[in-house]
Amino acid sequence: MFIRFVSTGGTIDKIYFDALSQFEVGESQVQHILSEALVQFDYGIEALLQKDSLELTDADRRRIREFIDADSAQFFIVTHGTDTMVETAEALKGIEGKTIVLTGALSPARFRTTDAIFNVGMAVAAVQTAPPGVYIAMSGQVFEAGSVRKNRDKNRFEST
Amino acid sequence: MFIRFVSTGGTIDKIYFDALSQFEVGESQVQHILSEALVQFDYGIEALLQKDSLELTDADRRRIREFIDADSAQFFIVTHGTDTMVETAEALKGIEGKTIVLTGALSPARFRTTDAIFNVGMAVAAVQTAPPGVYIAMSGQVFEAGSVRKNRDKNRFEST
Amino acid sequence: MFIRFVSTGGTIDKIYFDALSQFEVGESQVQHILSEALVQFDYGIEALLQKDSLELTDADRRRIREFIDADSAQFFIVTHGTDTMVETAEALKGIEGKTIVLTGALSPARFRTTDAIFNVGMAVAAVQTAPPGVYIAMSGQVFEAGSVRKNRDKNRFEST
Amino acid sequence: MFIRFVSTGGTIDKIYFDALSQFEVGESQVQHILSEALVQFDYGIEALLQKDSLELTDADRRRIREFIDADSAQFFIVTHGTDTMVETAEALKGIEGKTIVLTGALSPARFRTTDAIFNVGMAVAAVQTAPPGVYIAMSGQVFEAGSVRKNRDKNRFEST
Repeated sequence: MFIRFVSTGGTIDKIYFDALSQFEVGESQVQHILSEALVQFDYGIEALLQKDSLELTDADRRRIREFIDADSAQFFIVTHGTDTMVETAEALKGIEGKTIVLTGALSPARFRTTDAIFNVGMAVAAVQTAPPGVYIAMSGQVFEAGSVRKNRDKNRFEST
Repeated sequence: MFIRFVSTGGTIDKIYFDALSQFEVGESQVQHILSEALVQFDYGIEALLQKDSLELTDADRRRIREFIDADSAQFFIVTHGTDTMVETAEALKGIEGKTIVLTGALSPARFRTTDAIFNVGMAVAAVQTAPPGVYIAMSGQVFEAGSVRKNRDKNRFEST
Repeated sequence: MFIRFVSTGGTIDKIYFDALSQFEVGESQVQHILSEALVQFDYGIEALLQKDSLELTDADRRRIREFIDADSAQFFIVTHGTDTMVETAEALKGIEGKTIVLTGALSPARFRTTDAIFNVGMAVAAVQTAPPGVYIAMSGQVFEAGSVRKNRDKNRFEST
Repeated sequence: MFIRFVSTGGTIDKIYFDALSQFEVGESQVQHILSEALVQFDYGIEALLQKDSLELTDADRRRIREFIDADSAQFFIVTHGTDTMVETAEALKGIEGKTIVLTGALSPARFRTTDAIFNVGMAVAAVQTAPPGVYIAMSGQVFEAGSVRKNRDKNRFEST
């Protein structure tokens, strides 16, 4: 089994820069999470974008889609900011024969208390057990693209 | 969605008792992991056994099977020691209409570096996406019961 | 032994708000750190201010000084942002018969990797072993007020 | 400032070996703790012994004393199991002109929740602020050798 991880930024990868008293998107945390999880499958990590998801443009979404289209892998996990994860999932629908799972975190992976590790674990299981299609793995659930929204007030993902 | 968690002991729940200079199976860590993961589904946790998996008997395995059989839930996650997880998975085969995922950890959940959180995340995704049957979620992979072994030398689970 | 903790904000207490994609000063982390450290002395925590230290005014510093002056305790630990910790230490000089240690963190206490726990440990030891006076405990060292600066380029505290 | 760390084993350095379902003294965690704490002083780490402190013999204690006697450093921090830390502290009394602080942990440094980081922070501050002599830094307090005991029932160190 081979999984291609595509990182695009978002809270999951945020890091704090004391010198600036500022919090920015840092390096992908996926490698670190997979090492700790003692995973035994083959994988590659593509650092495609490094943005808050509110800043992602249509051009960025086309770039993600083109990357997945052109890549020979069958299983893809896209780490992504939570605010527009739903929109990017929609934009990836219709790619034939590939399973694509988007995930991210409501609390940065570098935090002591974070949903990032659990969420990447969910994505890794979903990508290998679900039929081809586009999914979001957040809030302890695996949603199909098109039937999920982020409820900002309740800080969670839920079915539509 | 409702998931029934059944804890049986194993490394995932190990705790260190300084007074005894000893390491023993403690309370289930599942509640703690699910809280941090900000999950939004309904669940119940049944603390059925609290043993190293090398100490599990056939009677213990019958008890796990009877519990799942009698419970009205459809989705089950069994946390379990790794040494005989494969045997317990075999012993649970043939229960109709339920999806059962066994998971655990090679490093205790109370450790700073652990595979426990990731593994429970995998189990949560697998139980809701895989067809009814019995699975093991370990080493970054979701295996079907009957086609997986623990390779003790390499400290990992692998297909047979 | 009784230690009075006075929290004023700073990186040590920063928390991330996903809803705002923003990082702000949150509740004091001192209580959490002391619980984990299994400390056995008596203490009280006064949440006096909740600011980045660059935003602290002369009036804020007077308020800290007046609080310490008026409080009957002998040992004080002030958690503080790092950027103006040196200035606040200067502003507290000359209080008779009390030992005052300022500390904080270059990386938030809520992070998995942080200097906060170690630094509070240093402050707790310094406040009970050093003679009355004002000190800064950072970068693995206990400096006397008036002979220490923050080197922003090297992200550390050092003797002047 | 130069601090010589001497590791002798104990709970602070315990690691869990899943293959053996066993918990043993592993490598010294001091290096890891100091790196995370962003300390800026010079130090060396001597891995002298790797034992549970109940197994330390008089010969082991002589070896620790001879090592410190022969070493040119002025500041020493000895990481040590908690059960006989008090005895080793007694055995180190009377070394002239050196400050020696013993510390350790009631919960292993590799745990997510541990007193190890805080305790090493206390020891680092105590060794540079206290007058020459032998001390124990545990339970949030800096005790002088000869006036401290471990209360096993309450799992803490306290004055005698």
